[in-house]
Amino acid sequence: MLTAGVDIGGTKVFAALVDEAGGVHERVTHPTDPGAGTASVLQALDQLLGGLAPGRLPAAIGIAAAALVEYPSGRIEYAPNLFFEVADLPGAVRNRAGIATIVENDANAAVWAERQFGSATGADEVLMLAVGTGIGGGVVIGGELFRGHLGFAAELGHVTLMEGGPQCACGERGCLEALASGTAIGRMAREGIAAAPDSIVLELAGGSASRITGALVSEAAHAGDEFAAGILARAGHWLGVGLTALVNAFDPELIVIGGGGAGAGWFLVEPAKEELRRRLSGRRPIPPVVTATLGNDAGAVGAASLARLRLLGPHRSAGGNR
Amino acid sequence: MLTAGVDIGGTKVFAALVDEAGGVHERVTHPTDPGAGTASVLQALDQLLGGLAPGRLPAAIGIAAAALVEYPSGRIEYAPNLFFEVADLPGAVRNRAGIATIVENDANAAVWAERQFGSATGADEVLMLAVGTGIGGGVVIGGELFRGHLGFAAELGHVTLMEGGPQCACGERGCLEALASGTAIGRMAREGIAAAPDSIVLELAGGSASRITGALVSEAAHAGDEFAAGILARAGHWLGVGLTALVNAFDPELIVIGGGGAGAGWFLVEPAKEELRRRLSGRRPIPPVVTATLGNDAGAVGAASLARLRLLGPHRSAGGNR
Repeated sequence: MLTAGVDIGGTKVFAALVDEAGGVHERVTHPTDPGAGTASVLQALDQLLGGLAPGRLPAAIGIAAAALVEYPSGRIEYAPNLFFEVADLPGAVRNRAGIATIVENDANAAVWAERQFGSATGADEVLMLAVGTGIGGGVVIGGELFRGHLGFAAELGHVTLMEGGPQCACGERGCLEALASGTAIGRMAREGIAAAPDSIVLELAGGSASRITGALVSEAAHAGDEFAAGILARAGHWLGVGLTALVNAFDPELIVIGGGGAGAGWFLVEPAKEELRRRLSGRRPIPPVVTATLGNDAGAVGAASLARLRLLGPHRSAGGNR
Repeated sequence: MLTAGVDIGGTKVFAALVDEAGGVHERVTHPTDPGAGTASVLQALDQLLGGLAPGRLPAAIGIAAAALVEYPSGRIEYAPNLFFEVADLPGAVRNRAGIATIVENDANAAVWAERQFGSATGADEVLMLAVGTGIGGGVVIGGELFRGHLGFAAELGHVTLMEGGPQCACGERGCLEALASGTAIGRMAREGIAAAPDSIVLELAGGSASRITGALVSEAAHAGDEFAAGILARAGHWLGVGLTALVNAFDPELIVIGGGGAGAGWFLVEPAKEELRRRLSGRRPIPPVVTATLGNDAGAVGAASLARLRLLGPHRSAGGNR
């Protein structure tokens, strides 16, 4: 039996059919209309479900959104980057598709996917940072997704590391997200590029400093650019400072770095690991840090898996029929 | 049936007999010999158990220590303030007393006590900060004590809030503990006292700035001293910054402030709540912040309750026979 997973990003909606082993079958990508997030989701689902034979229709739908999502209602409480016009997204989807629907925070869905099918398979205490435009967090405790009292737990990008530091999208300053996200990496590169005439970063950005992004910095670092590697090392340092706080708080068995930041790989993750070692050595064992393996599928796969678990029950979640 | 709880502090060991409703029966206080922590614990227990009729001997012993305590072994991994000469404290106590023994982190024991018998009774998602010489943390998730993978979770005093900030006892800088603990409050007052000639803090310290402590600052604030109130407001501000990060991470139903800091009351807690409100309003509901009600008994009562639960089973933990 298949379930559907939908991942709502700032620029596109990704929808897929997912089997109980995390395998992705059909895939649909639909642009997000910033003024009509719910409509974009419904259109992507229409596209995914439209051509399917009745026997292949999903038994449940899971939606992953970059938002504070109330549990278990799925109400979207706060989604500054998504501009949702209705808070009752699960109700809207249920009405349109006639299929039971849940909504989860996107990083929560991603850590669940990595824990069920990816880099953290079998681990019961997992902490994940999804380093992309922002930094999302997801935590598995005792083999279950940790949601907190209202569903808003694991907003790990918003631990304050530097009071009065750079502005964060959340309105505060000096959050982990403001110091180590793709956005922060792009900003640090734009600020530093004038003093780095040998760097290829400006060239990759078509000669325009304002077009420098975290992804371009990562690309340049992989091509051997020292300026870019230095920027990633600074972000990695902050990632390590944040991870130190989070290891002290959550004592995870395993740390997963996902999102676009996983693509920066060694350049970002090694400095983070070094900082973690420097701060915690001699005080406590240091958990392994690995990069996510499910890439951009993680949100949709995790949401589909959580929909299966929540709506069809645990017996349909492992070893059930397709 | 009674169990024993032992709380090991930096200067004294407190041991008590505790019933299944959290009631404290016998009490013993014994000085901690810094060079022989285990001996102090054994002596306190000898004193507690020595005069008891056989029918009143505890069925299990729980020890609370300001340390990283491995779960479930009770091995003490890191205890910079206690100078334990043996890591296998539960084994040493078991050998001496002939009674099954567990060890828990002191703030973990305290949050469990508050959750079972105190300010957080009935709440399933609780976050506690014990503000004393340092800042300990304890977390209840799904109605159970949260220990993480190795038992080292909820070291909440060591979230970094100000990279490069004041020195912390853990070796790092700018931790919550270095900014809002009793030690930090004392330090801020010593640094500021020369510029506050109208303050009574120096007088309370016998005229010697080096004798100013967090407790004296709290006493002065309650007596109407504006300088002292200002110092507590600064510490409370940092407490609020830390709580914001921790609400983002744990999404608790209820926040409990305990330890000596609870004695500073309004002066410390109101600025913390105000900071929390300022930072989270409009983004998510703000959990209530309450002060602990079990005072200095919390560690021993929680350890005794956890010993009951772990060693005698859940059926002996509620409604069982004395």
